[in-house]
Amino acid sequence: MSGWLKIAGLGPGAGVMVTPEVSAALAAATDVVGYLPYVERVTPRPGLVRHGSDNREEIRRAEAALRMAADGRRVVVVSSGDPGVFAMATALFEALEAGDAKWRALDIQVLPGVSAMLAASARAGAPLGHDFCCINLSDNLKPWALIEKRLRLAAEADFAMAFYNPRSMSRPEGFVRALAVLREACGPERLILFARAVSTPEESLRVTTLGEATPEMADMRTLVIVGSSLTRRIERDGEALVYTPRSVA
Amino acid sequence: MSGWLKIAGLGPGAGVMVTPEVSAALAAATDVVGYLPYVERVTPRPGLVRHGSDNREEIRRAEAALRMAADGRRVVVVSSGDPGVFAMATALFEALEAGDAKWRALDIQVLPGVSAMLAASARAGAPLGHDFCCINLSDNLKPWALIEKRLRLAAEADFAMAFYNPRSMSRPEGFVRALAVLREACGPERLILFARAVSTPEESLRVTTLGEATPEMADMRTLVIVGSSLTRRIERDGEALVYTPRSVA
Repeated sequence: MSGWLKIAGLGPGAGVMVTPEVSAALAAATDVVGYLPYVERVTPRPGLVRHGSDNREEIRRAEAALRMAADGRRVVVVSSGDPGVFAMATALFEALEAGDAKWRALDIQVLPGVSAMLAASARAGAPLGHDFCCINLSDNLKPWALIEKRLRLAAEADFAMAFYNPRSMSRPEGFVRALAVLREACGPERLILFARAVSTPEESLRVTTLGEATPEMADMRTLVIVGSSLTRRIERDGEALVYTPRSVA
Repeated sequence: MSGWLKIAGLGPGAGVMVTPEVSAALAAATDVVGYLPYVERVTPRPGLVRHGSDNREEIRRAEAALRMAADGRRVVVVSSGDPGVFAMATALFEALEAGDAKWRALDIQVLPGVSAMLAASARAGAPLGHDFCCINLSDNLKPWALIEKRLRLAAEADFAMAFYNPRSMSRPEGFVRALAVLREACGPERLILFARAVSTPEESLRVTTLGEATPEMADMRTLVIVGSSLTRRIERDGEALVYTPRSVA
């Protein structure tokens, strides 16, 4: 088999945040596979077939990519941000493990990218500058009770927290509950950031407190960061900067 | 003031993982500032002054960078990986907050990079593919009791865990204790990865279990990842792949 499969992160949105390693893989590919809006970020060219598919099609998409690579094609599976953070790498390995044994001999590589949480953190300052955790707030694939348990333990550990998939049309109540749990566990003064579509023309950033935060401040394109008890705000003309110090007294 | 200050992530080591955004900043800079081995990753050119300094000089280095930017220079402060994860962005904001009030008017931007933990995760498969936390194991700036508390709470939350600065010459006993705490909290079968100098010529990756892990497997260039209870290993010719599934039953 001369095919290969690379699972690549396109970064948060801006072309200047795509690594040269990922650009080179896309330039060498015969096929690019992924969620339609991400596939559309790859410039069309002769010799490249773009296979865009719907959300929640991750396993079928992964199987199709593995099959094409086994057929000798050079396949790049694209994710937004980093492919290893709530993205296609895990789905690909689930399909690999459950699938055709000969797929295990394939040349498979994960190409990291600038994750949404790191882009959001950079945009705001350095809120993830000390110990932190990263939680997917979607309860599609795990029970809500586990999400709530993790929120409470993360607050007890005094981690800063980055949240993916805070809110969708189909389950708006989850984020309402998450905010209530966090407010109780961390208090109303705790800083919270809503970073939407960072590095794209639709980018926005809002810095507020848990006491002032409302569920409508987040949508599916928003990365939410809650500070630790030490996270601070530097006021200045224009936008405040938010960071978490390195030292714990 | 026409100067500016950008705090940029050089990624884990390979030039192909430096974003075009960071490369453009370095091309436009008059000064690059950072820990000597990172500054040396920036190719010298006429018109660029490279200011390399020692480890543990973060605040003095940050102040020097802020002063130069206030003097109208175009300054890039470089970190390895991402600048917002246990790196220079936080030190810079500490110096900014404590320093000359006019520094707050400076044009300051953080340019994210591919972090060591995401590069290590990509190299191994997708061990951080589900909820995870990220902890600095150095007790230079926080008490050991807090590190141990965070390890226990992270285990209770069943997070995958990424550890920075697992082990230094000056405090080798910390990682011995961390492994003991983790073995007790997660059991001996739990997967652990030692990813050293990922994407450099000295790269190595070792996948084992907490029961088999020894402190000598880590040094200051090693990123350590401990899986959640669901993290799995796909055996195959050559190297195993390690990933954490998306679903919790």
